[in-house]
Amino acid sequence: MIDLRSDTLTKPTDAMRAAMARAEVGDDVYGEDPTVTALEERVAGMFGHEAALFTPTGSMANVLAVASVVAPGQEVLCESSAHIARAELGAHGAITGLTMRTWTAPRGQVDLAAIESMFAPDMGMYFVRTAAVSVENTHNFAGGAVLPLDDLRALRSWADTAGTKVHLDGARLWNAHVATGTPLADYGRVADVMAVCLSKGLGAPIGSLMVGSADAVLEARVRRKRMGGGMRQVGVLAAAGAYALDHHVERLADDHAHARLIGEALGLDPASVDTNIVVVDRPDAAAFVARAAEAGVRISAVGPRAVRLVTHLDVTRADAERAASVLASL
Amino acid sequence: MIDLRSDTLTKPTDAMRAAMARAEVGDDVYGEDPTVTALEERVAGMFGHEAALFTPTGSMANVLAVASVVAPGQEVLCESSAHIARAELGAHGAITGLTMRTWTAPRGQVDLAAIESMFAPDMGMYFVRTAAVSVENTHNFAGGAVLPLDDLRALRSWADTAGTKVHLDGARLWNAHVATGTPLADYGRVADVMAVCLSKGLGAPIGSLMVGSADAVLEARVRRKRMGGGMRQVGVLAAAGAYALDHHVERLADDHAHARLIGEALGLDPASVDTNIVVVDRPDAAAFVARAAEAGVRISAVGPRAVRLVTHLDVTRADAERAASVLASL
Amino acid sequence: MIDLRSDTLTKPTDAMRAAMARAEVGDDVYGEDPTVTALEERVAGMFGHEAALFTPTGSMANVLAVASVVAPGQEVLCESSAHIARAELGAHGAITGLTMRTWTAPRGQVDLAAIESMFAPDMGMYFVRTAAVSVENTHNFAGGAVLPLDDLRALRSWADTAGTKVHLDGARLWNAHVATGTPLADYGRVADVMAVCLSKGLGAPIGSLMVGSADAVLEARVRRKRMGGGMRQVGVLAAAGAYALDHHVERLADDHAHARLIGEALGLDPASVDTNIVVVDRPDAAAFVARAAEAGVRISAVGPRAVRLVTHLDVTRADAERAASVLASL
Amino acid sequence: MIDLRSDTLTKPTDAMRAAMARAEVGDDVYGEDPTVTALEERVAGMFGHEAALFTPTGSMANVLAVASVVAPGQEVLCESSAHIARAELGAHGAITGLTMRTWTAPRGQVDLAAIESMFAPDMGMYFVRTAAVSVENTHNFAGGAVLPLDDLRALRSWADTAGTKVHLDGARLWNAHVATGTPLADYGRVADVMAVCLSKGLGAPIGSLMVGSADAVLEARVRRKRMGGGMRQVGVLAAAGAYALDHHVERLADDHAHARLIGEALGLDPASVDTNIVVVDRPDAAAFVARAAEAGVRISAVGPRAVRLVTHLDVTRADAERAASVLASL
Repeated sequence: MIDLRSDTLTKPTDAMRAAMARAEVGDDVYGEDPTVTALEERVAGMFGHEAALFTPTGSMANVLAVASVVAPGQEVLCESSAHIARAELGAHGAITGLTMRTWTAPRGQVDLAAIESMFAPDMGMYFVRTAAVSVENTHNFAGGAVLPLDDLRALRSWADTAGTKVHLDGARLWNAHVATGTPLADYGRVADVMAVCLSKGLGAPIGSLMVGSADAVLEARVRRKRMGGGMRQVGVLAAAGAYALDHHVERLADDHAHARLIGEALGLDPASVDTNIVVVDRPDAAAFVARAAEAGVRISAVGPRAVRLVTHLDVTRADAERAASVLASL
Repeated sequence: MIDLRSDTLTKPTDAMRAAMARAEVGDDVYGEDPTVTALEERVAGMFGHEAALFTPTGSMANVLAVASVVAPGQEVLCESSAHIARAELGAHGAITGLTMRTWTAPRGQVDLAAIESMFAPDMGMYFVRTAAVSVENTHNFAGGAVLPLDDLRALRSWADTAGTKVHLDGARLWNAHVATGTPLADYGRVADVMAVCLSKGLGAPIGSLMVGSADAVLEARVRRKRMGGGMRQVGVLAAAGAYALDHHVERLADDHAHARLIGEALGLDPASVDTNIVVVDRPDAAAFVARAAEAGVRISAVGPRAVRLVTHLDVTRADAERAASVLASL
Repeated sequence: MIDLRSDTLTKPTDAMRAAMARAEVGDDVYGEDPTVTALEERVAGMFGHEAALFTPTGSMANVLAVASVVAPGQEVLCESSAHIARAELGAHGAITGLTMRTWTAPRGQVDLAAIESMFAPDMGMYFVRTAAVSVENTHNFAGGAVLPLDDLRALRSWADTAGTKVHLDGARLWNAHVATGTPLADYGRVADVMAVCLSKGLGAPIGSLMVGSADAVLEARVRRKRMGGGMRQVGVLAAAGAYALDHHVERLADDHAHARLIGEALGLDPASVDTNIVVVDRPDAAAFVARAAEAGVRISAVGPRAVRLVTHLDVTRADAERAASVLASL
Repeated sequence: MIDLRSDTLTKPTDAMRAAMARAEVGDDVYGEDPTVTALEERVAGMFGHEAALFTPTGSMANVLAVASVVAPGQEVLCESSAHIARAELGAHGAITGLTMRTWTAPRGQVDLAAIESMFAPDMGMYFVRTAAVSVENTHNFAGGAVLPLDDLRALRSWADTAGTKVHLDGARLWNAHVATGTPLADYGRVADVMAVCLSKGLGAPIGSLMVGSADAVLEARVRRKRMGGGMRQVGVLAAAGAYALDHHVERLADDHAHARLIGEALGLDPASVDTNIVVVDRPDAAAFVARAAEAGVRISAVGPRAVRLVTHLDVTRADAERAASVLASL
């Protein structure tokens, strides 16, 4: 069985497990886990931000990141198929208490005209104010699409003028970085606050980070505890993340090649497969997924007519070739 | 000074005050205010629904109505300039804990293709599910635009098939009714739950109603108390509402004529002024509003480039003519 | 039928209705209702506070008042049968997001030793901090018990030293004032923020006020709108409140005398009936209430073994005498 | 430096690390991690409950457990120094939206008379209803005090009659089990829902479990995802927990002996040190803690006058003896 349901499925390698087993640890609620602290500093530094905070999941990192710039009664604008809108179980409303409005763009792109048109400045105390715009790069439900740096820079520049913040959901920002060669720090510069994930393409078993200013991270540390994310000897997990940063970033290029190969077999223009995710339109997504599983390839439905498959660390070239052939034959 | 900032500004007439002064009352928290109960039954009946609930504001009616069909962690879809998104201070997120996604349509219309494309069915427990679609008729920030009954019926029919609910923000549904001749019951039939207001075009000082099934209203009665809306001798307010329903519905046609008159003077196609609201594009909305005030006409900015004016019970034809002439001259 | 279920049952008198009918009004969301503004200033002044805010209910006034001094993740301490704990449908948790801890005292009194012992100062970011202590005067479920001014002053003094705030739920503070002769300003001085009600003993149909600093009230104005309490021509209600302040405060002494008379008939020490509420222990409260109703006296159960009766504006001395005789005979 | 600040400080042993390194894993969001599933089933079985759910922290386990029996607008009763009240950052209010009332008892014990007196049955829709009583065993801030099984059984029996639920915060239930010899299943029987922790006395780096009915756990699985606790290859952590259950339960007796030894040195009656926590009264807790640190023993202040020290896996008998001597000399 070749499992392409998600890149969250990857299992830690032996070398990663060894790194975890020898990790120096401490109680991170007391701020005393050296491995976590080092990882947080390293990741903050990679993006040119002041601080970072380890979280058990990407959802928590996003909730903390958005909450650091959007208060209850304020709103965040995002693309209508953004992960923060569709897949975090409404935590931004249910826990943070903010509202969202959305624009819809092909491949989940930044549509600055739409954003500008929806933007609600501070119009006095009886209107909801747009406190932030959120973008996702790469964009999961848009098939791993990359948001071009130029578009992000234009958003940043407009946001500065408009007086609003930018949140970057970078769960798969490593993929965008490898696919385009854009330096991570360039991505960091366009965002006030961001979230990155160690457990998707990078293959760590558990862990994401919220990245932002020292003040935002300090406040998020309290919110993290309230949400039940204040773990103890987190170094065992952070060591896996550090190992992944050392060894699993550049190899994402292989995942991208594999995804293109499968996408092409499914009739997509390979140029449209930016990274490691392929989303294809199938009239009955659920039935297609079921048939694929019978044929030995697990994929998933992300909408009534949308099928998604994701390449990752545990998918070899041979796996990709077989999956391509199986799926093309359905 | 002619005040066109909002139709919420109307003052109760002497006859309405007299009706309030003689209202039979009781303690409505105990369900013992006959005037409120009669009004709730009357309004529910006008729309062919089982029950209705008096609320101190349209915001509370909308929050209760939407919360009756959308749970925390679920979402409601609405047009991006809907009142529930832009002007209720984020209560749907901050208090109810739901999330929203939005489509954008000229004049705030129903865009069924966009809705269908955004719609998230129940895909298992890790995706946010679209529990309801909300429409606003007439649409305040879209300039009092009417949503055609055919579009609402198409939405209703699609929603039934898709398994989602329809919320109708009918704060100014009376205006749509008068402008188009559509029976109120026809509007009622397209909605699972709705909110209507007595204190805008109808001229009551205070009061809205949530309208829906008996179960939804029973549950909303508890939520209303929690939100601080369980008032006591409410008959004094309900009497004003009942008076307004008796005497102030048909006369909305005058407000519409006045709005068209002013809209035309401002260069709009009179056919584009559906009801009592005129929204015009002015490069610097705030400055235009200030100049209008100096010239004796109060209007408001509802966006950096959007100026809104609203006709109502306290604006005579002569007022409208003078306002048209003043605003045209700016 | 003599109705002693609550003093919320009072109906506006003819003179009060006349005052409502002639009230000068404006749109209070715009801050333009002169009658409301005057009432808010008057009530703030009575307690020596900077500002006040009209709300549709006492629950909303309490929620806004407490939320102005206690943030989500902080706690308020109160007596275990306080109205904010038992009877506001959990709004302080469900809407504000705070937590409570409680002490239990005979007659709902201030127990400073218990408070001091429970008090949680700022111990760093992982402990819930006591942001305020709330007291209720008179104490509803403790049978309208008065909290002695000396106890309130001791609490105030301790709170200043401890660095915590004091909230006073003064829904029936007028009763305490009349029963003891304590100047209202003396009560105002012991509280950082308070709530008072116009629709219980005072007999207005609708309305309470949150009272506090100008900053707290400004912030509460936004929260009130979010909770759906931003009403329009509120002067029609405020006029009733102003009338009640003019005419219905001193007469509370009659209600107190009537309650004592009934309490005595039920075997209570008359000295234990401080104001207009009598709570008596009956093994099966619900059955006792039912039998009383059959005998022409409506009272209520406020616990499995607690029966409550309340005298008010619409209960004459003759009513009280008959109720006493009826209840004593059960 | 001997670190007695908390038993959360323990570091995984080499053998535990080895177990983690060889853990079989899968994606637990998909329910496919065999090590987690086995641990959940094992722990549920130990307490005679249907199901269990792994969480990153004890706070999340408690929040999920309490939320499974108490809805927004309902209340939980607990002792006033319970961990759920004092140390989970108000999540039960801020996230779940419930309220609490508290009793105060020496050593955090069950006070059934107080509970019964506070208990609010379903009195109709305008009163907050007591949906659950929560007890903590052992009781952290009461110095690791054990709640006698007889008291828990009496509570259970009363709760069944009253129609309310029982939540057991069993973060340190293993300590109670070892200290008293009470079978775990006996504890399980008194609770509708419970939380137990692997990362305190048991020495796992990360992990707690919520334990309850299959339905409650299914619902908690969704809430866990919303709170950001839906982690992926959780088997690496669950393996540590399973190892701890195999090897670190019985040895808690050593921790208890060490705590008694220190408690006695500090002048406590050794019989008052039930388990591994010692709380002593010191007039200036913060200063005492500082002096202890200078002398090589780290302890913590849990109140202005309360000093706490905790023995654990990483504290040897020699450490305990030295700590006793150092602290006694201060």
